[in-house]
Amino acid sequence: MEIPTLSDIQQAHEQIKDRIHRTPVLTNRQVDERSGCRVFFKCENFQRVGAFKFRGACNAVFSLADEEASNGVATHSSGNHAQAIALAARMRNIPAYIVMPENSPEVKKRAVAGYGAEITFCEPTQEARESTLEKVVEKTGATFIHPYNDPRIIAGQGTSCLELLKDYPDLDIILVPVGGGGLASGTAIAASGIRPEVNVIGCEPEIADDAYLSLKTGELQPSKNTQTVADGLRTGLGELTFACLQKHLHGIVTVSEEEIVSAMRYIWERMNIIIEASCAVPVAALFNHKIENTSGKKIGIIITGGNVDLENLPWNEQREHG
Amino acid sequence: MEIPTLSDIQQAHEQIKDRIHRTPVLTNRQVDERSGCRVFFKCENFQRVGAFKFRGACNAVFSLADEEASNGVATHSSGNHAQAIALAARMRNIPAYIVMPENSPEVKKRAVAGYGAEITFCEPTQEARESTLEKVVEKTGATFIHPYNDPRIIAGQGTSCLELLKDYPDLDIILVPVGGGGLASGTAIAASGIRPEVNVIGCEPEIADDAYLSLKTGELQPSKNTQTVADGLRTGLGELTFACLQKHLHGIVTVSEEEIVSAMRYIWERMNIIIEASCAVPVAALFNHKIENTSGKKIGIIITGGNVDLENLPWNEQREHG
Repeated sequence: MEIPTLSDIQQAHEQIKDRIHRTPVLTNRQVDERSGCRVFFKCENFQRVGAFKFRGACNAVFSLADEEASNGVATHSSGNHAQAIALAARMRNIPAYIVMPENSPEVKKRAVAGYGAEITFCEPTQEARESTLEKVVEKTGATFIHPYNDPRIIAGQGTSCLELLKDYPDLDIILVPVGGGGLASGTAIAASGIRPEVNVIGCEPEIADDAYLSLKTGELQPSKNTQTVADGLRTGLGELTFACLQKHLHGIVTVSEEEIVSAMRYIWERMNIIIEASCAVPVAALFNHKIENTSGKKIGIIITGGNVDLENLPWNEQREHG
Repeated sequence: MEIPTLSDIQQAHEQIKDRIHRTPVLTNRQVDERSGCRVFFKCENFQRVGAFKFRGACNAVFSLADEEASNGVATHSSGNHAQAIALAARMRNIPAYIVMPENSPEVKKRAVAGYGAEITFCEPTQEARESTLEKVVEKTGATFIHPYNDPRIIAGQGTSCLELLKDYPDLDIILVPVGGGGLASGTAIAASGIRPEVNVIGCEPEIADDAYLSLKTGELQPSKNTQTVADGLRTGLGELTFACLQKHLHGIVTVSEEEIVSAMRYIWERMNIIIEASCAVPVAALFNHKIENTSGKKIGIIITGGNVDLENLPWNEQREHG
């Protein structure tokens, strides 16, 4: 697989722009005062299915040739990628086959089913997910769409940064969380192509620092068996996303669990938007001075999504346990 | 006191427009599908201090003559109006004296103090609030700014509808919650002046239906001693807001507590924005078919604010109690 280019991202944007929301960019004076810079939040929590994942899924699904598409698409996911694939397939009027761990939250099962996808449940292990998916693909002839280690997905995720830099062309730094690396890769490729002066910095939980270690050692490190509150970032990099980040990312920093929860709550309380813990990772990095030379700078932050279990908020958990 | 006019609202907008946020208007496909119409949410939860209240407070504070202003401004409030007056006074560089019930939430006390206001605490009764305020005004010579029964406040609150109709000039219906009636009055005056075809409908909790009863009977009814979850709407109308609503409002409907909590949660989960229970009242009215002839129509809803106690969300309470 080839590393996607700015041109791939621009083509992806042409392909999906009438099917996605052009998400707004929000600013907040209290955030600016606290951080000493000007922060521009690209709000993918207002994207369809509530997360940036719809950009990549939509691009992948609409990139398929008609014949290939007619057999449908398949993936395994307990989260936003499943919903994103299901919705994109419904929009293209082709079948979607989603393998989900049987212990996925009811609300996610209902959402995926609500988009008309066919769900196959499996045991909640990586092995069961992969073997079940293999059977589904064999039976249906559907095309497997990986959640991040796929150039069409990476190109789709990069369209968020494309829009951000169209609205605010003079950003100095862009912060992006790193899980599987699809969003970080697309963002770094888009930014370095459009504006080489901008620094794109990846942000990771300390207890899920496989990307940090991979980039420091130059060798792809396995993901950790971690329970970080930023559940969207528990995944490890793939070979393609690792190669993209090696080539285009300017740096990577880590933050503690406490810093993540505190930043998440701050954004909820001051900005009145619902963000997942994963989105709070770059905010935590900024608030806790993990990023160099930010004073007075213009900083873009990609807010990745807002699908949160309202019955189970991390500050309530902390209170109960601590 | 005279009923303000569209021209007063336009002047208020000139006065405050560089001091407020021009709040965004959000839409959501799921809301549109569920309601069978097109809904445009004017998001005052993204306004400064997190609520529309800043518009009126800012207009009132900046409307004062220099001499009058120099002695400062005063009010009693446990909520958003206190913060709004405190911030507006700081912007004009004059003192703000806020009387707050001693049992106000710590977070609100800190916020008001953070804007540099001088707080006087009192017992949590209406009598204590009014008598304490009287003493403060006597001692300081500050100007009392009522939270809603004041033409400058009403004109300021009307600027939100002004912006909404500038962005979406062809709305058919505008829904607005009714508490003290400042926002509802400003909205109805602005809408009837700009676009007489638009219907402005007030929305109230069933168990706090004093405005509903006032408008039906033609006589100002006292507020009820109510614990509605929409705590911003527990107040009764004032004489001026009652007169405004009698003249300009097209109708008023009520919703149950259960309908309010359910609509509030729906907006949190689907739109990923944090809204107060008060904002959910118009949404509940729409979802529960309290408004006539909405099918296919364009409907504006003023989202009033987002200052919520995250430790104490109404669906959690319901679960515990029910």
